[in-house]
Amino acid sequence: MGKIKIIPLGGLEQIGMNITVFEYEDEIIIVDCGLSFPTEDMLGIDLVIPDVTYLKENISKIKGFFITHGHEDHIGALPYIIKEVNVPIFATSLTMGLIEHKLKEHKLDVNTDRIIVDFGCLVNVGKMQVEFIKTNHSIVDAAALAIYSPAGVIVHTGDFKVDYTPVFGDAIDLQRFAELGRKGVLALLCDSTNAERPGFTASEKTLGRTFDSIFHEHENRRILVATFASNVDRVQQIINTASAYGRKVVVEGRSMVNIIQTAVELNRLSIPENTLIDADESSSYPDEKTVIITTGSQGESMAALSRMANGTHRKIKITPMDTVIFSSHPIPGNEKAVTRVINELLLKGAEVIFQDTHVSGHACREEIKLLYTLTQPRYSVPVHGEYKHLLAQESIAKELGMTSDRIFILRSGNVLEMDEESAEITGDVPCGAIYVDGLGVGDVGSIVMRERQNLAEDGIVIVTLVIDNYTGEYLAGPTITSRGFVYTKEAVDLLDEATILATEKLEKLKGQGVSDWGRLKGALKDVLGDFFRKKTKRNPMIVSIFEEV
Amino acid sequence: MGKIKIIPLGGLEQIGMNITVFEYEDEIIIVDCGLSFPTEDMLGIDLVIPDVTYLKENISKIKGFFITHGHEDHIGALPYIIKEVNVPIFATSLTMGLIEHKLKEHKLDVNTDRIIVDFGCLVNVGKMQVEFIKTNHSIVDAAALAIYSPAGVIVHTGDFKVDYTPVFGDAIDLQRFAELGRKGVLALLCDSTNAERPGFTASEKTLGRTFDSIFHEHENRRILVATFASNVDRVQQIINTASAYGRKVVVEGRSMVNIIQTAVELNRLSIPENTLIDADESSSYPDEKTVIITTGSQGESMAALSRMANGTHRKIKITPMDTVIFSSHPIPGNEKAVTRVINELLLKGAEVIFQDTHVSGHACREEIKLLYTLTQPRYSVPVHGEYKHLLAQESIAKELGMTSDRIFILRSGNVLEMDEESAEITGDVPCGAIYVDGLGVGDVGSIVMRERQNLAEDGIVIVTLVIDNYTGEYLAGPTITSRGFVYTKEAVDLLDEATILATEKLEKLKGQGVSDWGRLKGALKDVLGDFFRKKTKRNPMIVSIFEEV
Repeated sequence: MGKIKIIPLGGLEQIGMNITVFEYEDEIIIVDCGLSFPTEDMLGIDLVIPDVTYLKENISKIKGFFITHGHEDHIGALPYIIKEVNVPIFATSLTMGLIEHKLKEHKLDVNTDRIIVDFGCLVNVGKMQVEFIKTNHSIVDAAALAIYSPAGVIVHTGDFKVDYTPVFGDAIDLQRFAELGRKGVLALLCDSTNAERPGFTASEKTLGRTFDSIFHEHENRRILVATFASNVDRVQQIINTASAYGRKVVVEGRSMVNIIQTAVELNRLSIPENTLIDADESSSYPDEKTVIITTGSQGESMAALSRMANGTHRKIKITPMDTVIFSSHPIPGNEKAVTRVINELLLKGAEVIFQDTHVSGHACREEIKLLYTLTQPRYSVPVHGEYKHLLAQESIAKELGMTSDRIFILRSGNVLEMDEESAEITGDVPCGAIYVDGLGVGDVGSIVMRERQNLAEDGIVIVTLVIDNYTGEYLAGPTITSRGFVYTKEAVDLLDEATILATEKLEKLKGQGVSDWGRLKGALKDVLGDFFRKKTKRNPMIVSIFEEV
Repeated sequence: MGKIKIIPLGGLEQIGMNITVFEYEDEIIIVDCGLSFPTEDMLGIDLVIPDVTYLKENISKIKGFFITHGHEDHIGALPYIIKEVNVPIFATSLTMGLIEHKLKEHKLDVNTDRIIVDFGCLVNVGKMQVEFIKTNHSIVDAAALAIYSPAGVIVHTGDFKVDYTPVFGDAIDLQRFAELGRKGVLALLCDSTNAERPGFTASEKTLGRTFDSIFHEHENRRILVATFASNVDRVQQIINTASAYGRKVVVEGRSMVNIIQTAVELNRLSIPENTLIDADESSSYPDEKTVIITTGSQGESMAALSRMANGTHRKIKITPMDTVIFSSHPIPGNEKAVTRVINELLLKGAEVIFQDTHVSGHACREEIKLLYTLTQPRYSVPVHGEYKHLLAQESIAKELGMTSDRIFILRSGNVLEMDEESAEITGDVPCGAIYVDGLGVGDVGSIVMRERQNLAEDGIVIVTLVIDNYTGEYLAGPTITSRGFVYTKEAVDLLDEATILATEKLEKLKGQGVSDWGRLKGALKDVLGDFFRKKTKRNPMIVSIFEEV
């Protein structure tokens, strides 16, 4: 009887880009296929997807993608990856709805098998079977997975929280986790996002009461609510409260419109008749009879709320009669952008409410303890989080009595092999991050990125020179052109002086008989680089372009 | 009897760059002269200073700079501004020590009068007098100012908190604020930084006990503490605890070393003999007998702690025997950088403590209420903060019974004129932000910044062409060179196709008799811009350089 391999290709050392390989003998299943958003040093990058070299090399083994839920960090890389790894996709209803919408948007002409799975059903892929288990999260139809293999049962929680009173559907299927635990769980891969936070995450339903009381207190004002497009339950509660207060609902923001449409089609969201109206229509209703649900709760500069805040939204103008609710927390890194939008809204006279109007979709420490206690795993593999989050989950496992040798903090690419007898990291597979910039996937690598960073910091100085290819005479130039360096009208003297220096250097080298372009360009780079550093303390990129006639 | 004008030239709509003009007839005094740090869209900018056109135009009226305390956002622009506005500087002892150090660093050859002022003394500048009043803040020798004018007394709090048990010196001089209030205060300009936070800020001294207990629990480990260089009281408490536990202290980071040196010279910091050692010496002591106090608590990439965390610090290596305390909160915008450093430290095996190890230096709502209640100002002018912070202070003033007509939320440049009878905004003066990049002050303006943003996002494509200035023939080119756009080795086809397109376009225009360089360059920009947008969804900067021979 063989061992099962667990190989994360992303999702560790970071929030996002979740994708994990489970390999038993000649079979592979893949859990999730997410993207991550660029960090601030990834200039010009739109999104980041995992390097799936390992999947391409083992494509004949792969039985399918098993997707835990419909968030970008779990499904967002699919349109890119299935072009090369075209295997069946298994997911619950709303998750599949969002995946299909995404594939359509990408106009993919690949035919990918898509299998909608109900909770409790077992998908048989050969030696392994996969069961989808109901959980709660900030999106409907979120699932944990039980992966059955001859080496043992592995439970992967996906993103989850324990919500005893969810807005839609059932509470997390704790009984099933208990049954699995009773029978024996080999390993638990558990969400670490909130592993640093003590206590329990509040139920999504608590926000219904919050909205009720805010709407009650603001009966004479227009209300705008910004939240995550994918948080269907949140949207449901806003619509419920709006409907109770006799308000019409406008939905703004492309992703919000898309997800609401998909959720309604799949009966994951119920909207009373005559509640939704277009932004255009809203002017025919009094302000106090409308609610605007909008994207932009993270301060994203192109989102609907940001455009309203800075006055560039075509249809909706912010006035002192508006109350704007941020039903969200800023994701780390977005704090300043969110604050900028809040200040802009306040400057337009709006009231802004941004405290106690959000609950997390991730389990805190006590919920994580509950999952461990129900499943009693032999091994713990904390997933979904930066290193500090993984360590925080490790500390929980230790509190519960697990010893270090049973806890594995993996890095992306690690191959963890295990069975009932033992578990160890036995190797590494290729992994990494691929940049998507516009239509380009992977064509912006580390060289282009370093160039962009250099250009961003200090701009560029271009030296052009025309050389006679018979005589070696310099027919024109050196001419110096700059962009993003100094404002040239004010810096004419500086660039004139640089031109003289470049000319002298070239003449001197010619006098020494140097005609090799590489040496000439290197000399120009040195002399101009030193000059600019001395004069400006800046390091513009210096590019020499020689033309021969 | 005239009115007094209050003209903020910065410090509103933002945290930082504090500078406010007080003008009575032909006399001006200036309170503070701070810088701000660049936001993430200010590419390559080192720091930002206020536009002081108004000061230059009225230089004959100016009696001096009155500096409330020695933080960068209150003194940092002085080396730049006094080159053009060379007037006396008035400040308390440590504040002046830090200013003098800063002027020396900038090797300024201007002779500026510097007057060290004691708390309670009155500086007479003519029709106005200024009194420095003891406050508490996260740096020693912080002062509020009472500005006496024939139009009335204005109280400017500077940055402050109410600390009944400060580490060094006295508590804030609440009696003096009460006396001024009893006599009559025309306007209160009060710190808004923490105006959103309920309650009281904890005393700095509470951290002494925190350090004691952490040191006690970690007796067998090396301890590193990262904090703000300027927080002399914090450093004092770390040194006190280190000394109590018989540990030697290493100070790392240039600004930390500088400020400690200045504070010791001015008796604001007392270090027991034989406590400080060099980093080089630390290896001769056991780990558990040393403490390293370091800069880098904000995740600044070049600071000592970041270099230790990423393994590039020359002298100090992080090991699993280290406990690192972040005695700081991340300033908004720095969260991700701080988290990156924490993760790097954890990856090296260190323990990291970052909760409950910092107290703020700014007054919360109850302290602000105290100041209002003591001074009973006729007018309220919230200062130091973004718009949302100013509004939060306005709400405090209203809670205390002030009516809207007595509260002024100013914008930088506003001229607020007031006396006992009335107050109103009567106009605006020029104001703004000047970028400092390397040695350049103001030479990077909006054009260069837009160029850098374009370059950062999508890179640059350079088209070179050599033209015969007799015949108009194209002797060489068009040649296309790119940087930061695509990795050229992989994108050869794309650039080849672009070269063909450019050649065709130029030939076509030549056929039509077009020889105007402006039109040719415009046409190249259009044809290549469209081509790259279609092929890559990117908008690189396109620069055409023509050479004539």
